[in-house]
Parts: sequence; structure tokens; C-alpha cells
Amino acid sequence: MPATDASLMPPPSRTMNFNAGPAALPLAVLEACRDELVDFGNTGMSIMEHSHRGAAYEAVHHDAIARLRSLMSIPDGTGTGGYDILFMQGGASQQFAQVAMNLLSPGASAGYIVSGVWGEKAVSEARAVASQSGATVHVACTTASSTPGAPSEASLNPGRWGGDAKYVRVPDAEEVALAPTDAYVHLTTNETIDGVQYATAPGAIFPSFGTVPVVGDMSSDIAWRPIDVRQFGLIYAGAQKNLGPSGVTVVIIRRDLVEAGRTDIPVIFQYRTASRNTSLYNTPPTFSIYLMRQVLAWIGNLGGLEAVEARNRAKASAIYRVIDAFPEFYRCPVAVDSRSMMNIVFRLPTPALEEAFVASSEAHGMVGLRGHRSVGGIRASLYNAVEPAWADALAQLMHDTATRHA
Amino acid sequence: MPATDASLMPPPSRTMNFNAGPAALPLAVLEACRDELVDFGNTGMSIMEHSHRGAAYEAVHHDAIARLRSLMSIPDGTGTGGYDILFMQGGASQQFAQVAMNLLSPGASAGYIVSGVWGEKAVSEARAVASQSGATVHVACTTASSTPGAPSEASLNPGRWGGDAKYVRVPDAEEVALAPTDAYVHLTTNETIDGVQYATAPGAIFPSFGTVPVVGDMSSDIAWRPIDVRQFGLIYAGAQKNLGPSGVTVVIIRRDLVEAGRTDIPVIFQYRTASRNTSLYNTPPTFSIYLMRQVLAWIGNLGGLEAVEARNRAKASAIYRVIDAFPEFYRCPVAVDSRSMMNIVFRLPTPALEEAFVASSEAHGMVGLRGHRSVGGIRASLYNAVEPAWADALAQLMHDTATRHA
Repeated sequence: MPATDASLMPPPSRTMNFNAGPAALPLAVLEACRDELVDFGNTGMSIMEHSHRGAAYEAVHHDAIARLRSLMSIPDGTGTGGYDILFMQGGASQQFAQVAMNLLSPGASAGYIVSGVWGEKAVSEARAVASQSGATVHVACTTASSTPGAPSEASLNPGRWGGDAKYVRVPDAEEVALAPTDAYVHLTTNETIDGVQYATAPGAIFPSFGTVPVVGDMSSDIAWRPIDVRQFGLIYAGAQKNLGPSGVTVVIIRRDLVEAGRTDIPVIFQYRTASRNTSLYNTPPTFSIYLMRQVLAWIGNLGGLEAVEARNRAKASAIYRVIDAFPEFYRCPVAVDSRSMMNIVFRLPTPALEEAFVASSEAHGMVGLRGHRSVGGIRASLYNAVEPAWADALAQLMHDTATRHA
Repeated sequence: MPATDASLMPPPSRTMNFNAGPAALPLAVLEACRDELVDFGNTGMSIMEHSHRGAAYEAVHHDAIARLRSLMSIPDGTGTGGYDILFMQGGASQQFAQVAMNLLSPGASAGYIVSGVWGEKAVSEARAVASQSGATVHVACTTASSTPGAPSEASLNPGRWGGDAKYVRVPDAEEVALAPTDAYVHLTTNETIDGVQYATAPGAIFPSFGTVPVVGDMSSDIAWRPIDVRQFGLIYAGAQKNLGPSGVTVVIIRRDLVEAGRTDIPVIFQYRTASRNTSLYNTPPTFSIYLMRQVLAWIGNLGGLEAVEARNRAKASAIYRVIDAFPEFYRCPVAVDSRSMMNIVFRLPTPALEEAFVASSEAHGMVGLRGHRSVGGIRASLYNAVEPAWADALAQLMHDTATRHA
């Protein structure tokens, strides 16, 4: 357990923010943004007032791309050996449709792996696209609790801990049934509502499926640690969890897939449009990109993704350690090797105790700990900008609460 | 001519911003944003860090909607008697496609009125949508210079003033040929590149086409003056000109059209999704909406749209007055009754003189006056937040320049 140590506490004016997204941003980034908000770089204008065709903004824009490429070691070759970094709008929810619009030609199919609520949504939107384009979308694997798989721990104690959770694990590659026509296989690397994440062990890799490109919704765990991007054909992520504010979506796409994308959909939805125009085809969300650039610089200053990984693991360990130390009081329904490092979901024995815990957390200067309304319970989101001291303070509160009820 | 008067000059640290968008924002809004950027409303968090499901952001969100409804007198009844206000992403460029995705069922058609470059793009994207959905998109009218219409003034002096401009006027309703199957007619209320605008005379109304709903791309002139919204079935506008920063798109849509929209397209693209979820279906661009709310409040403090109209007319008059006073030096190719109040385009006798003028303007603390790269010349964008003193300073510079060359 962390000691009660005043040095771990944030300055009293700062709220400990465990929101699931939009989420905490680095204080240093916010302060720097404030200081230049009215006058960016002595131009006599805010960054928001600069033209996206002007030198001041373009330098920010291209630097954001370069920093993301460097941090994530994104290959810059041609064809299958390189990836474009695109800044789009509409969040992951729009990418659910846009991926299928680009990559599903008539007669083609795609397989979806569903390990949580966001995976369900991705399938549903891709199906709407496929039905209009003469393509097919199928669920290649689901870990929903009605299918074979490990029983959730909560099912051992029905009536406590809020009953069964629907999704409690990620599947192995062998459980996934692709079709020969599949143009890609889609998975959600981290499920924010269910607290289920792929490849969390140190150095773990993602499931692979021969030459079929993997499309990953990485909205809630992009850049939480170094990964080999070449395991994916396409990665997309709303920025508002690990990279910045809401309003910008990052797409990292292998260059052969850009070129293979459909040409008969509206230009605005084609990845090649953003690719050929360096995401400056139309007016981008300039402020969101500016702030994301600042967050990327902050990650670099921390020491890059290796340092971020250590920081994130320490935060998650502090919470899971308390959960495991009090098995009669806290229960995380997720299989141990699928436990998310980003969104830790857990239950207390009764809804009343959960309500009391949320109230207590707020009294201690914490926000965002109520679980998603569709599943209840508690959820602590520990994205990159969440301070380790906040996780320690939460662990301490959990420890004290459990001890009081022992 | 405006007198050279120190009281008209902005503080020297402030650049006079004539950008075509993203554009100038009110200094008071930027300063207030700066002051609460790190700690919004004593919550210990930036507005960017608040959950879109939390009370602090939701109050901002709903207040932005309420302020826009009030400022623009947007009816709130049911069916054809009411309009929803939606906050979307992707800019007008995405609406080019999204309007057709929602409103064009198989077998239906839509007529497009083209009075500039943005109208061309709207047609092109709608055609891509229609070709996939078994619908038709046709140009119901174009004022491109190869069609009958008033000759551009520049054509009277070939070789000077950059030659013919392609678009120099808006059409009358009688020039528009709709088809019986047309589900809507689309027009661009202001063309930023061509400097061509509808309905600029005091109290002027827009062309109407019986019961066929008019869809208006109002990106660059929304809220420049009071209008009767009931002239439109749907209005869309990127915020980054008259309403705020980039990253949020306003859609004002008659409620019967929300309900009539297609249900077989991806949920994220259906207007009914944003309507039923008050634009909180997925994570909105929270900071852009927050800042737009501040701009709407600023407009209210100015005295509402009547006051804004007077302010905008004064700015435009200051510039057009100099153009008309020096017909041998300045030439605006646009027919007088189609001249834009938002984007004033004009030529000087030679490209070299235009370059010198841009350089001189920059030396005087002005930016954004270079015409769009596709047409050249000079363009002064005079959106809501452009200070009258800046327009006066530009008029003075134009006067002095012309006098020097007389």
C-alpha cells in the first residue's frame, strides 16, 4: 500500500481526474497553452486565428505528425513498408463507418472481433456500410458471456458484485474464424467500458492473421506503451484519452491500403484525400491538433513511450494491488491477462457501497470514478496524463475504505 | 475616406486579421478563455478535461445551443414549424456528402445552384453519394462565366485585372430549373473564394422554390445579419469564420427533414442521431463548442445580430467605397448586387502591384489579404470578429496606395 504521504498529493487546486474521455491533460501543457493563447509565437494572434494555409499553423501541423511518427516509430517507407499519419474528424465513431467505406469493395467481406461494447458498435456501423455496397461484415469472434469462454469471476457469486459482466477477456487468435474474402480483420485494442485490453504483458504482441490486415480501434490505448505498428494495417484513435483534447482523430494507415481504398465514395471520406493533402484538404481542427502536438512534446520530455509505459504500469498496479488484496470487498470481473491498464473496472459488494465510494472519492478531490451507465460499478481511467500521485491517492482511499468495512 | 485617426488603430500588439478562415476571434473571448483555461469555473480542471457527460460541460453545450437559437430566432416547434440545432464535425466539406446521404433516397433527385467554387464541390460530393444510392444530382443553375449572364467587368479590359472571373453573381430564382423529383435545392449563400453572396441588401430574402426545401451552405456568412431561418430546410456552417474556431460544424435542420432522413446509412451520419442525443451521441469537439458559446455570448453583448449587421455593413462599405473611388486602380469583378459583405475580392492592375500591396499590408500589421491561390488577386475577409478599425485601416491603406499610383 502507498503510505499516506503529503508529497504524493497534488496541489490542492488541482482535481484528480479519472474521466474516461475527454480526460486529464498535462498541467504543463495547459499552462503553456494559456500563456500563448492570445498571442501565439509573437504573431499578435491566437493559434486559433491562424489560417491552416499559413506558415505558423503549418509548422505546428507538420511537427505534430513528425512527433507522432518519431514517438511511435511509425515506418515511413513505400507501399506495405510505410504508413501515413492522418488527422481526421468525427472520432472513432465515424471511423467505424469510414474504415468500411474505404476498404470494403463489392463482394468483399471483413471479420470483426468483438471483446466489448465498442466492438459491437464497430460491427453495427460497418454492416450499414456493407449493406449499401454489396459487401459483407461478419463477427469472426465474440467474447460475450453467452459464448464459450472463461466464466466471469462474478458468476461465482451471483447476486453480488453486480452479477455477470458481459465481456471479461480478449480472445486468442485461434478463436477467430476469418473468411477467405476478408479484406481486413477489426479489433478494439482496449474496451473502455468493459476494462478489457489486448497485449498488456511487457512486450506482448497482438494476434495476427497471416496476410489479412488488422484494423485496430486504439482510441483508448494508443501510445500507452511502445508497440510495433507493423502489426496493423490501420490504427485509428480519437485523441481525447491519451493524446489530447477531443475533436481530432488520428489514423495511421499502411500506404498500400490508402491506394487500395475505394475511389467511388465522396472525396472527403477517402483516406487518400487526407494522405495526398497532409490532412490539409479542408480546414482541420487546428486547436485540437495544436494541443495534441503539445501533449506529444510532453510525452517526449517524459522520456518517450518507454517512460510512459513504466508510469502507466505503476499507476495500474497501484489500483489492481488493492483490488486483489481485498477480494471480499473489490472484484474486477476481467480475466487477469485481459485486465486493462487504461480503464480499471471493479465492483464493490453492493450498489449502495459503490455510491458511497463515489461520494467519498469526490470529497477527496477525485472525479470520473463512476462506471459507465450501461454497466455500473466503478471505473478508474488512468490515461497518460493521469498523475501517478492521483493513482496512489485513489489506491489509498480504496485501501482505507476496504479496511473500514472489513 | 476615413481620417487617419490614432483612435481607430488597434493596440500595436494585435495583428489585423483578414484571414478567410480560420479567422479573427474577439479579443475579449480569447482573454476570457485564457483566464479560465487551466481552471474552468473553479473545478480544478480545464474545460477540455471535463467529461462530455458531466454537468460542467453539459451546461456549456446546452447554453451554446440556446444562445444560437435565441440570436438567430430559430423556431422551436414541431415538424415543419421547428428546427434542431446540431453540432457536428468535418466541416462543410463533410456536409456536402452528409446532406445527400440523409436526404437522397433511391429514385430521388436534388438540384444544385452553383455560384462559386464551393458550390462546385458540393455538387461533386453529392454526385458520389447519389451514384451509390440510385439517386440523381443535377445542376439546376450555374452562373459560371461560360453560361448566359452578365459579363464580368474584368472582361471589358482583357489583360488587366487578372482576366475574367469565373463567378461574378448569384442567379435569380427564375434561372433555376428544378426537377419534379427534387428532394431539395442546394445553394451556397456566400462564396468565399469568388466573393459572391446572396441577399445582401437590407432585409433581402433568399430565392424560394415552392415546397422544395432549400439547403444552404452558410459556412462563411451565418449570423452576419438576422435572417428568417424558415426560408431554409437545412443550414450548415463550419464555425471557423463567423462563430468560433475550426472543429465544429453547425447544422440547423427542420424537424420534418430529420425524421424523413434515411435510416439505412451509418448511425453516425444520420441527423436523427445527433438530434435525439442533443449532439452528445459520441464525444463532441468540446473545446470548439465551448469557444463558440463564448463568441455567441459576445455577439449578444454587442447587441445581437442587428448590431452585428450594422457593424459588418460599415466594414464592407469602407472597403467597397475605396474600390469604387479608384476604378482605374481597383476592380471588383462581382456584380454590385452580388458583392459579398464577408469576402471582398478585388484586383489591382498587375500581379506585381498586387504583390506589392500584400507586402505593404503586412508591413502595416495586416495578414490574410492574399486572394485564394486558385484565383489570385486580393481578398479581405470581414467576418464578425474583424474590428471596424481594421477595415478602416485597410481602407486607408488602399486609398493611400491608389493615390500614390494616380
